[in-house]
Amino acid sequence: MDFWVSEMHTNNVKISIRVEQQLFSAQSEFQRIDIFETPEFGKVLTSNGNIIFTEQDEFIYDEMIVHVPMAVHPRVRNVLVIGGGDGGVARELSYYGEIEHIDVVEPDQLFVYACREHFPEDANGLDDARVSMYYEDGLKFLRSRQDAYDLIINDCTDPLGHAAGLFTKEFYGSCFQALHEDGIMVYQHGSPFYDEDEDSCRIMHRKAYRSFPINRVYQAHIPTCPAGYWLFGFASRKYHPIKDMDAKRWKKREIKTSYYTTNLHMGAFMLPRYVEDLLEEEEV
Amino acid sequence: MDFWVSEMHTNNVKISIRVEQQLFSAQSEFQRIDIFETPEFGKVLTSNGNIIFTEQDEFIYDEMIVHVPMAVHPRVRNVLVIGGGDGGVARELSYYGEIEHIDVVEPDQLFVYACREHFPEDANGLDDARVSMYYEDGLKFLRSRQDAYDLIINDCTDPLGHAAGLFTKEFYGSCFQALHEDGIMVYQHGSPFYDEDEDSCRIMHRKAYRSFPINRVYQAHIPTCPAGYWLFGFASRKYHPIKDMDAKRWKKREIKTSYYTTNLHMGAFMLPRYVEDLLEEEEV
Repeated sequence: MDFWVSEMHTNNVKISIRVEQQLFSAQSEFQRIDIFETPEFGKVLTSNGNIIFTEQDEFIYDEMIVHVPMAVHPRVRNVLVIGGGDGGVARELSYYGEIEHIDVVEPDQLFVYACREHFPEDANGLDDARVSMYYEDGLKFLRSRQDAYDLIINDCTDPLGHAAGLFTKEFYGSCFQALHEDGIMVYQHGSPFYDEDEDSCRIMHRKAYRSFPINRVYQAHIPTCPAGYWLFGFASRKYHPIKDMDAKRWKKREIKTSYYTTNLHMGAFMLPRYVEDLLEEEEV
Repeated sequence: MDFWVSEMHTNNVKISIRVEQQLFSAQSEFQRIDIFETPEFGKVLTSNGNIIFTEQDEFIYDEMIVHVPMAVHPRVRNVLVIGGGDGGVARELSYYGEIEHIDVVEPDQLFVYACREHFPEDANGLDDARVSMYYEDGLKFLRSRQDAYDLIINDCTDPLGHAAGLFTKEFYGSCFQALHEDGIMVYQHGSPFYDEDEDSCRIMHRKAYRSFPINRVYQAHIPTCPAGYWLFGFASRKYHPIKDMDAKRWKKREIKTSYYTTNLHMGAFMLPRYVEDLLEEEEV
């Protein structure tokens, strides 16, 4: 049997992954969720037909969105994860003994259920005693918090779909308010290569640039992302992602990684000319 | 009409690009060459069904394989390009006034013909007065040269097909001999993500490691490569790719780039943990 699932990266380019069988399919209030067993990527989860993560490459995303800010901020006690119902981000955070509390705000209970059933190794992150789960809208939750977090991780799945409210100007302002005066926010910044992705990339940078004093973008190679190339935003009230990165302190923790190193941390902020140019054009 | 060309990145994952029309198709002594007009990537050239380059992303490959060694070696006069019949590498080299001579050794005349017809902007690089074309086998050509070049660029299209001789131990030894005592060789190192690509990546590094005193690998995001992630090998008799990179000297030349910067140069050598690990395992 020739059984494939495809994601359109643009109208004119797609990636296809061979499927052994479909393991799960359901429509929640927010999204259609499907899970496939595949020979190349292990289990693959899609939301409305877009690949959200796979067993084989989720480590890149989860390590890069967690360890980069954690290697910069010297004293993270309280963390807010917006989205993150799969538990991968909470799992990486759980390796840090100094973290006292992690709030995970995920609106979609069915998403959490599906991940717990099929990705128990990620979902175990949500069972850490320091995690509080809130099945709520991220933006509403944020509005009720002030000066509460050292780190906010925006791990929502779909910037342009049901989670679009998480990429408004108000959202960045609310994050700024919810952070302590030396807090850091990291977020998915999309893929800069294809024209249609470039636009949302520009809009996000413009909004973050106007809301935070320190804004940098960093990169990773994630095979199942559009063009295999994904950016993260680093918006910060005090700490600089390169100058304040403390490699010695981070290495002392002896966290086992497959992608992140403190050396790669530096390189991840060294961007291609075309990406630097498009970001600079929004810094007005 | 729904008209697509697909490349199998492995048996279980493929990329597909929408096609407007096929512009060229021919079988040479060495390979089947096809050229497609596409809305996303402009013109796309394939060899035996594998994408070799596209108008939209060739700049990444050509800039990274040329400017990295050129920013390290202080006095490049003589360059050998193995493969490179499309002219993209020669075009980037032509921006350096100090280069006196460029030998391009491409066995496939039909490949050069097809590129001249359909990618004249790249192929113009071959018209530089300093370029000598040789329609010969790269390995045979190399055997006849000793202490002749400052820089060798292995730009051959297909490490595992007709150009397999260019990835043998003998090849690295012949390159070492053909270089001056401070010469540099750069080469395509493949994509490290998928299991079947990882193997050839390991073999190449092992061979280069045993032939040259200085060996480093550097990376770029190339959307149409497997997993969007491509590695280059930097094998050198004297100069170190980071310690001997002279950003001030390179910037003085005012070469216009879309991907390469001297800052990105540094970052390109800062590799993910899983890539560092697989390379280290071959350094025995």
